Amino acid sequence: MEFKEKLKEYQIYINNKLEEYIDTIDCPEKKLNEAMRYSLLAGGKRIRPILMLATYELFKNNIEVCTPYFVAMEMVHNFSLIHDDLPAIDNDDLRHGVPTNHKAYGESTAILAGDGLLNYAYIVMSNDILKEYKEEKVKVLNEFSKEVYQMIIGEFVDIECEGKDISTKLLEYMHKNKTGALIKESVRMGAILAGAKDEELDILTKYAENIGLAFQIKDDILSEIGDEKVMGKPVHNDKEANKSTFVTKYGLDESINMLNKVIDESINILNDTFGNRCEFLIELAKYIRDREK
Amino acid sequence: MEFKEKLKEYQIYINNKLEEYIDTIDCPEKKLNEAMRYSLLAGGKRIRPILMLATYELFKNNIEVCTPYFVAMEMVHNFSLIHDDLPAIDNDDLRHGVPTNHKAYGESTAILAGDGLLNYAYIVMSNDILKEYKEEKVKVLNEFSKEVYQMIIGEFVDIECEGKDISTKLLEYMHKNKTGALIKESVRMGAILAGAKDEELDILTKYAENIGLAFQIKDDILSEIGDEKVMGKPVHNDKEANKSTFVTKYGLDESINMLNKVIDESINILNDTFGNRCEFLIELAKYIRDREK
Repeated sequence: MEFKEKLKEYQIYINNKLEEYIDTIDCPEKKLNEAMRYSLLAGGKRIRPILMLATYELFKNNIEVCTPYFVAMEMVHNFSLIHDDLPAIDNDDLRHGVPTNHKAYGESTAILAGDGLLNYAYIVMSNDILKEYKEEKVKVLNEFSKEVYQMIIGEFVDIECEGKDISTKLLEYMHKNKTGALIKESVRMGAILAGAKDEELDILTKYAENIGLAFQIKDDILSEIGDEKVMGKPVHNDKEANKSTFVTKYGLDESINMLNKVIDESINILNDTFGNRCEFLIELAKYIRDREK
Repeated sequence: MEFKEKLKEYQIYINNKLEEYIDTIDCPEKKLNEAMRYSLLAGGKRIRPILMLATYELFKNNIEVCTPYFVAMEMVHNFSLIHDDLPAIDNDDLRHGVPTNHKAYGESTAILAGDGLLNYAYIVMSNDILKEYKEEKVKVLNEFSKEVYQMIIGEFVDIECEGKDISTKLLEYMHKNKTGALIKESVRMGAILAGAKDEELDILTKYAENIGLAFQIKDDILSEIGDEKVMGKPVHNDKEANKSTFVTKYGLDESINMLNKVIDESINILNDTFGNRCEFLIELAKYIRDREK
């Protein structure tokens, strides 16, 4: 199957499952549920669930095992977007081409919808563990919870550094946490659920760390030179907010060089160990490099 | 041991454990960690952890089994206070006699400190499950996550109903969730961790539901006639915010009658099943009725 077809197939599968799981939320106050659905189903590339599924498929075929875990991952990713967009944090009006959660539902609802999605991730995972216990499921929930905390720290550092000239080390630390933590964890969760050996997990973690870094560099490049219509949100926001990004720190050309280098590394790491089996993950790395939104 | 001594003993034990667990949070950005500590260690009556421990002690003595679970409970309780106090929600300036989290650390930090505490509850519990698996621990994490969601719904209903004349049914639904969910769950977690039989769990759940309702009625009474200095926060806030409370709905005298009735019921429920063993839980019910803050 061609890469783009497989990508589309994953996205359809993921969106159907998200719809299914969020529909099971029993809430007499429809508006809160609506606000949670609004952000969760607003679109997005579903990179994290796709990484989890494609990694799992390196080892096994029964991808339904991953469902509660990629649903949890995407819930938490969307919680972070809702809270990051709040007036007190990034104060963004548009996301995926539609009004941000607080613009659509009001600030108090957006705070609680974010809280609801974060917490719901743990309902979904623990439902699955209770249904059928496996040690690796607990390991995955535990690792996940720690990486979510790292993401929150990353967001905090991002806010704290606004308007400051920060060191390269701190910029990398911030991104490693804010964007990298959940991208890395998506790959690790797929591998752990599939019973990957320790040395395979190490290789995949290195791949994922590169992908996470590449994702952020590309985000920073798109924030500078992306097409507002394609992206569904305003560009040049980082510069206006005086944010430290790879582009403001290294310039555009050097950022593009870094992006290419990091992606090449991620491809070589995988190729050496998995050969033909990892074709999709390699194409996915290129997709992250070449994406326009 | 006298009730007040035992209560104090529990509180010291709980505060020490909270300090121990929050200290293990590794965060290079000290301010986020400080903001989380600030609220978690600001005081409070520790009613939920005490309910969990006293219920556990109906059956077993080794209360350290409960530690990760009451720590998680108190983290989530404090997450909810931080987010409820935010300008976009209740906009409160004082809590436990000190500035609320956003007044002390700023709004963006308070949002993330709340997120951090909510998420940290799941790190603490899953660390414990990973260390030594028992099915009842997963059951407890799962039930807890569902009740946290009910609490978020309760808070949402509270906001939505501001300034509206709501039905008795909706007022009770709101409080059952907002305050009652975690109080009930504290008792259930203690009982489940101790291996209580189903019929014992049912009795204890009824006791806890009454305690939760009583707690809220008393809160509403204190909001009306409490001593601001003793309580550490302003009174009459509910009236000003046009909130529906038991007092605005039923009047002060009828609310006091309801409180006494609900507490008497909770005592009778326990006495019939547990007799002398439940002396502390009965005294705790009276303490909730008679407290001045």
